[in-house]
Amino acid sequence: MCMNFEDKPKDECGIFAIYSATTQDLASTCYYGLYQLQHRGQESAGIAISYGNDIKYYKNTGLVSEVFAGDILKELPEGDIALGHVRYCTKDEVSVVNAQPIVYHGKCGDFALAMNGKITNADELRKSLVKEGVIFQSNIDLEVIANLINKYTEGENVIIGVKKAVEVLEGSFAFVLITSTSVIAVRDRFGLRPLVFGTHFDDYYVSSESCALDSLGVDVERDVAPGEILVINNEGTKSYYMDNIERRPCIFEYVYTARADSVIDERSVYKARFECGRRLAEKIKIDADMVAGVPDSAVVAARGYAAGSGIPYIDVLEKNRYVGRTFIQPTQAFRENSVKIKLNVHKANVQGKRIILVDDSIVRGTTSKKIVDILKKAGAKEVHMVIASPIVKHPCYTGIDIETYDQLIGAYRNESEISKIIGTDSLHFMDVEDLIDCCKAHAGDTFCAACFDGKYPDNIEEKVLKRKGD
Amino acid sequence: MCMNFEDKPKDECGIFAIYSATTQDLASTCYYGLYQLQHRGQESAGIAISYGNDIKYYKNTGLVSEVFAGDILKELPEGDIALGHVRYCTKDEVSVVNAQPIVYHGKCGDFALAMNGKITNADELRKSLVKEGVIFQSNIDLEVIANLINKYTEGENVIIGVKKAVEVLEGSFAFVLITSTSVIAVRDRFGLRPLVFGTHFDDYYVSSESCALDSLGVDVERDVAPGEILVINNEGTKSYYMDNIERRPCIFEYVYTARADSVIDERSVYKARFECGRRLAEKIKIDADMVAGVPDSAVVAARGYAAGSGIPYIDVLEKNRYVGRTFIQPTQAFRENSVKIKLNVHKANVQGKRIILVDDSIVRGTTSKKIVDILKKAGAKEVHMVIASPIVKHPCYTGIDIETYDQLIGAYRNESEISKIIGTDSLHFMDVEDLIDCCKAHAGDTFCAACFDGKYPDNIEEKVLKRKGD
Amino acid sequence: MCMNFEDKPKDECGIFAIYSATTQDLASTCYYGLYQLQHRGQESAGIAISYGNDIKYYKNTGLVSEVFAGDILKELPEGDIALGHVRYCTKDEVSVVNAQPIVYHGKCGDFALAMNGKITNADELRKSLVKEGVIFQSNIDLEVIANLINKYTEGENVIIGVKKAVEVLEGSFAFVLITSTSVIAVRDRFGLRPLVFGTHFDDYYVSSESCALDSLGVDVERDVAPGEILVINNEGTKSYYMDNIERRPCIFEYVYTARADSVIDERSVYKARFECGRRLAEKIKIDADMVAGVPDSAVVAARGYAAGSGIPYIDVLEKNRYVGRTFIQPTQAFRENSVKIKLNVHKANVQGKRIILVDDSIVRGTTSKKIVDILKKAGAKEVHMVIASPIVKHPCYTGIDIETYDQLIGAYRNESEISKIIGTDSLHFMDVEDLIDCCKAHAGDTFCAACFDGKYPDNIEEKVLKRKGD
Amino acid sequence: MCMNFEDKPKDECGIFAIYSATTQDLASTCYYGLYQLQHRGQESAGIAISYGNDIKYYKNTGLVSEVFAGDILKELPEGDIALGHVRYCTKDEVSVVNAQPIVYHGKCGDFALAMNGKITNADELRKSLVKEGVIFQSNIDLEVIANLINKYTEGENVIIGVKKAVEVLEGSFAFVLITSTSVIAVRDRFGLRPLVFGTHFDDYYVSSESCALDSLGVDVERDVAPGEILVINNEGTKSYYMDNIERRPCIFEYVYTARADSVIDERSVYKARFECGRRLAEKIKIDADMVAGVPDSAVVAARGYAAGSGIPYIDVLEKNRYVGRTFIQPTQAFRENSVKIKLNVHKANVQGKRIILVDDSIVRGTTSKKIVDILKKAGAKEVHMVIASPIVKHPCYTGIDIETYDQLIGAYRNESEISKIIGTDSLHFMDVEDLIDCCKAHAGDTFCAACFDGKYPDNIEEKVLKRKGD
Repeated sequence: MCMNFEDKPKDECGIFAIYSATTQDLASTCYYGLYQLQHRGQESAGIAISYGNDIKYYKNTGLVSEVFAGDILKELPEGDIALGHVRYCTKDEVSVVNAQPIVYHGKCGDFALAMNGKITNADELRKSLVKEGVIFQSNIDLEVIANLINKYTEGENVIIGVKKAVEVLEGSFAFVLITSTSVIAVRDRFGLRPLVFGTHFDDYYVSSESCALDSLGVDVERDVAPGEILVINNEGTKSYYMDNIERRPCIFEYVYTARADSVIDERSVYKARFECGRRLAEKIKIDADMVAGVPDSAVVAARGYAAGSGIPYIDVLEKNRYVGRTFIQPTQAFRENSVKIKLNVHKANVQGKRIILVDDSIVRGTTSKKIVDILKKAGAKEVHMVIASPIVKHPCYTGIDIETYDQLIGAYRNESEISKIIGTDSLHFMDVEDLIDCCKAHAGDTFCAACFDGKYPDNIEEKVLKRKGD
Repeated sequence: MCMNFEDKPKDECGIFAIYSATTQDLASTCYYGLYQLQHRGQESAGIAISYGNDIKYYKNTGLVSEVFAGDILKELPEGDIALGHVRYCTKDEVSVVNAQPIVYHGKCGDFALAMNGKITNADELRKSLVKEGVIFQSNIDLEVIANLINKYTEGENVIIGVKKAVEVLEGSFAFVLITSTSVIAVRDRFGLRPLVFGTHFDDYYVSSESCALDSLGVDVERDVAPGEILVINNEGTKSYYMDNIERRPCIFEYVYTARADSVIDERSVYKARFECGRRLAEKIKIDADMVAGVPDSAVVAARGYAAGSGIPYIDVLEKNRYVGRTFIQPTQAFRENSVKIKLNVHKANVQGKRIILVDDSIVRGTTSKKIVDILKKAGAKEVHMVIASPIVKHPCYTGIDIETYDQLIGAYRNESEISKIIGTDSLHFMDVEDLIDCCKAHAGDTFCAACFDGKYPDNIEEKVLKRKGD
Repeated sequence: MCMNFEDKPKDECGIFAIYSATTQDLASTCYYGLYQLQHRGQESAGIAISYGNDIKYYKNTGLVSEVFAGDILKELPEGDIALGHVRYCTKDEVSVVNAQPIVYHGKCGDFALAMNGKITNADELRKSLVKEGVIFQSNIDLEVIANLINKYTEGENVIIGVKKAVEVLEGSFAFVLITSTSVIAVRDRFGLRPLVFGTHFDDYYVSSESCALDSLGVDVERDVAPGEILVINNEGTKSYYMDNIERRPCIFEYVYTARADSVIDERSVYKARFECGRRLAEKIKIDADMVAGVPDSAVVAARGYAAGSGIPYIDVLEKNRYVGRTFIQPTQAFRENSVKIKLNVHKANVQGKRIILVDDSIVRGTTSKKIVDILKKAGAKEVHMVIASPIVKHPCYTGIDIETYDQLIGAYRNESEISKIIGTDSLHFMDVEDLIDCCKAHAGDTFCAACFDGKYPDNIEEKVLKRKGD
Repeated sequence: MCMNFEDKPKDECGIFAIYSATTQDLASTCYYGLYQLQHRGQESAGIAISYGNDIKYYKNTGLVSEVFAGDILKELPEGDIALGHVRYCTKDEVSVVNAQPIVYHGKCGDFALAMNGKITNADELRKSLVKEGVIFQSNIDLEVIANLINKYTEGENVIIGVKKAVEVLEGSFAFVLITSTSVIAVRDRFGLRPLVFGTHFDDYYVSSESCALDSLGVDVERDVAPGEILVINNEGTKSYYMDNIERRPCIFEYVYTARADSVIDERSVYKARFECGRRLAEKIKIDADMVAGVPDSAVVAARGYAAGSGIPYIDVLEKNRYVGRTFIQPTQAFRENSVKIKLNVHKANVQGKRIILVDDSIVRGTTSKKIVDILKKAGAKEVHMVIASPIVKHPCYTGIDIETYDQLIGAYRNESEISKIIGTDSLHFMDVEDLIDCCKAHAGDTFCAACFDGKYPDNIEEKVLKRKGD
């Protein structure tokens, strides 16, 4: 169904919510917001609108522009509160059942809920909820959260429901719940997934990334804090905090996931990437003719490397902008070089040249090998690869979709072993400390960089493996 | 969204289920079965397949042939048990959320559930389930049933869950539940909605109407009995029965809903309709040149009238076969005579003629008026209308979508008053006793004819009005 | 691509044209007209609108309601003249290139042209036009006609172009040409294909069948006469006539092609069919319990037989109304009995009965065999088939798509041989003389019944075979 | 219908053709080739395959991946010769009638023809062809060329037809004609539009740009020369040349149209753009903090400027990658800042900064004004714009879709007047001589830079204006 030419982790999602005193046509505003978060999820999109005591919604598989083509937006009602979501590609789907937001009727009315993250004890929670008499209509973690919130809601007090629900959730989550009167935005106690809060006159916005707020002319106020439960209603905003808050935002957002024009936890993604490149140039000296980045995600880091090294930046790969969802599978003849459908070599720039190629990360290594191969075939004399992140040595249980060691080329290999496999003349990774340093907004900022250093927040790996062992 | 040129009640659905020891490609077989039930529901279609411990499904809005166009059927797995559903048009939908079957994970595994009917105490049950901590993701009665079954299931014993659930349900229902090992087919204690059981070698089938079994070469064994809970699994079939069974199948199935080639509760729908016409001819003598039926549903009764009266059958209306879901709304110029888009007059047959026009029923009366009008304009000398059912004087709370008295032209009017409104030279309805007599398979058979005689099973009207009064 | 469960000839088309002094939104009116001609062609549809000196159009594959779904009609301009077309299914298409109308710019402006018929010397004409320097962008005969009209147009005189073009055309044709100022409706000198002319206040209409005019409330004035060139412009109507007019309308329109509520050449199709049945009953006496027609096309004739014989009419086959364009191909298991997808037996009416089954015609015989088979399996004691037309013994070169003798079950077989193949207890056809008699509007009316009697107008068969022999 | 957020000229097309002795599945290869030319045309796509004496084709509106979604490619036949085309967006279309290739049957068989360019005397030629008895079924220039070739073809000699046809064509054209036995690739005598020739073992390829050949692993042999008629058949290749060849390739291909990884007339587009930037940096010294390019087309020139000036390259605009064909029109609230849907500011990079913003060209100036505006609002201290091309002062009659002076912001304005309108602190264009110098592959190379300098090849402007004056 979904096309994945890239060897990149994917399991992100994007959330966009509005609480508006005055704005007309929230559905359209939400649509534009989601459209800016499209890079976080291309499989499905949905928008829910709360009006009076009801919530109406529409969701389907496809890009935001496809799902809401035609008159669909007009069929959504005018309302005061909106919640939108985009979702990434997963494997075994034939229906829209896993699309978000999920909309449901619970103890005290209608709700819509959308999330970004991964609940590591979802199966356990699901089983115990099932024992208590609940049924599940999908496989998504979100249905577990909806049921927990409902279970713990006391009378009309949904906030207590949210507070208690988040206590039993393990893993990562940023989610937004809308009711008939309020928006409740929640970020887990590690702040693993990003969530940002903005205002525009008397309206309030919550978004996975600041780029969506910028684009709408909404002022970015601040990040929702790790462990914060931010309630927005007609009295303004009020915050509650979880226990045991321990700041550990996912560092991979800076490496690859987020859009470069976003600012996450007060650190510009662009600047973080540029600084990574610059820092690498300081430490790793390579005698070469040119620096280039793998488009699009590694171009900023490559520029940083060029700036730091004084070696000129020259593109070596051109990306085809039109790879879409409906692209047909390459026939056998083309499968081998499927990377060429997406990336073509700037032959004129490459011939006889010694190239420093910067990429943001290497996960499985399959695409890197192909890229090196087509550069060499195009006449590159040397290809030195500089990776603007450390070796991915550990699975991620709380976000991206790599859950076992054997999927990782670097799990049990060092730089030179990986270099040999992918065919580079030399291969260089970044130190974890340097990466963290580059992504810091403030001295003392801490991250989850477990995929690089194995230091999981909340002993997640241990818990996950123990559960599997049961 | 959905096109409704006809003044006919609609809220039916069709169910089709298979338990197979041997058949390959259940999804296709289920597709062909549903296709024969398409007249019972044209809004959405879905198929669920149980294989191993999982259930996969696909459902969407559209005709069976549209929903399962392309490769969708192939994406459904091979399995041993299948459940399909078609659903009628309702008003306020923008998504597939109300399509059936619903598939869920409950106390003892995966389930799929599909129904035909209307639970009159659904709101009440929903509220009390919500109080107990359950959330609802749609507005359909089926989700209430799913939760009740789950609630009452004891350990692995789903049958006890079903038994107890049906005790608290009021209204009409025929539903099928599939699990990883069994098919459970249920018909309410009045047998209000039809459900039939068939076999083909070692395979078992359940269908809303027998025509779907015939078409697949499946032997019709018998109707699922009013109040029966029929369990099909690897030990064969076993039946349980509800308390207080009181046979009252909906008589409107014979009048209009079912396909003429079906046999419901051992009575051929075709024969019932033909006999209605014949009986009317006996009682209502009209001096006319010809008899004609309103296509398609009243043609059989009209033939009966012709046979009984000796007056020749000559068509006066030709039906356009191509009115589809996507038909655009008539512009103002055409709206007035929108009936002409679907029905054209056989001018050559009509001019100067005294016509006996047989229709199956009159509900709102709007279409009847238009038909009389176009016949007169085409030169008919007299139009006498004979209705092969009594005056619809009462709402239906358990099936068709007419829930208030003021929607019914006949609620407070007699034959001559209605005749004046729709412009017939004379208008004649059938007696309830005669209708019941014509639809009987056996002496003593009883029906729900509440829309005609106001005798609701289970005092449903009283209960409904009392609830509304709360 | 296109679904054909039926063993019926197909190569018809439908034309609908409007010349309007006053009507708004001709595109919609044309849409409704085409919709009533949908039975004449289900593959593609198109509408062209002439406004000022330009002609805009839209055409695509699909039913009328599919092609003009969404806002397409609104994108067509307001104008004074409209031309629409529906087209039947042919085999080897992957694009819309053969859809009609074709719109072109020629010697004196913009034109749109649409036809029903088959030009038997098209290849020859095409070749000679190609030699003269013309190029062809499709395979349809219409492009030949367009080029001929253009070739023979003198100055601004398009009528002379039409007059000379029709002189060199062999075969059958009814076509309509629209220009910026006029509608020109043409019927070949034999009148092989139908074409009817109507008025509504100051507006003029031309349609393949009268049912489309009736449905719009347009008064049917008269048939366009065989050999007539009817010109409609701001001076009203004017007619020109070809030489050698010899009235020979296709009798198969009455047998099968036309809708029963149409009147063709002053003869009601319904009455012709009914009379065929009645006439058969007079001549062919069968001792049986009931008469039934194969739905939908043979039901009227069957009623005539019942009326004539006094044997009661009882349905034996129920037709599924929902077979659509997108219906997936039956899998192997179902292919054998694919007729059951479309037709189901009324078991209750059939068991133990001796049935007279009336069909309109037998062409290949494949479907007839299947129908007899399913009736016998359903318990019919005897199946006697009565065909409301003679044995099809000859190919048709001017209309329907059967061009060789070996496709016809009856080409070299008599009644009893065909009966043995299709498994009937007895099989009876109609005499050609009787058929002609039943279809006559006036004494002396003559037809093309060449498929039955081999008497081709204009020695067409001889010419066709000679050409093939070249 | 088609989305155009950008203020860029558009009227390009892409051609891709294959002559193959051995390759299987030419349709797929052609599909991949077209996919790499998608930037040259996003409105429609088509592929024609020549096999035996026939040509089959499919074309429709949409992106390559949309047009050939599903099984369409498989429905095209195996063959030896393929021709594909992508086409840009124009205004007044409701059908696929203008899609290419056009496929036709002419004097000596079947042909498919596809082009890139604009015939300035097309109307005149069309009129005279119409007088000679030809009809036109579309408005595209290509139909004129097809008719001319056909007209001048002598016997089986198509080459003579092409030779004579090109003599009467004015304007720009690169076209490919395929027959049952050969590929004929033609580039006008000025070489205004690009066309390149490649080989892969015994197969021959022709493409609008080299990037499509690279991506398929095809060796780029050489450009088709200005005025060349390159014939490829089973005897290999043979070239004919027009009279009066005068090398004047369109310089705007280097400025904006072509993909950066292509090499046109032996000059790398990337290097041309980079050199433009570098050259500008030499001449135009600006005291600023950073250099940035407007993505995507001006990024390379901006890098050149950064390299030449020593000022660091920092991005200021992030482009949303997901703007698609179906994107709904912004509501009023957003229309004003519609540029923000596509481009978001890197706030963190911009605040308080003096920015040199490089763009490739300014045509209407509307987008430039909006970009400057959003940068200023985001806190930029100064915005200096450097354009990597001269002021567009003249219409283009042979390619891009700007045909009148009043559409051009620079037609009658100088740098400082334009600067005032778009709100830059300073604005700088390139000299024509410098641009030409940067785009040269060899000393002495000449270009058409008429949009900048008014020096039209063949006195085209004079001829066009004279014709309009008629």
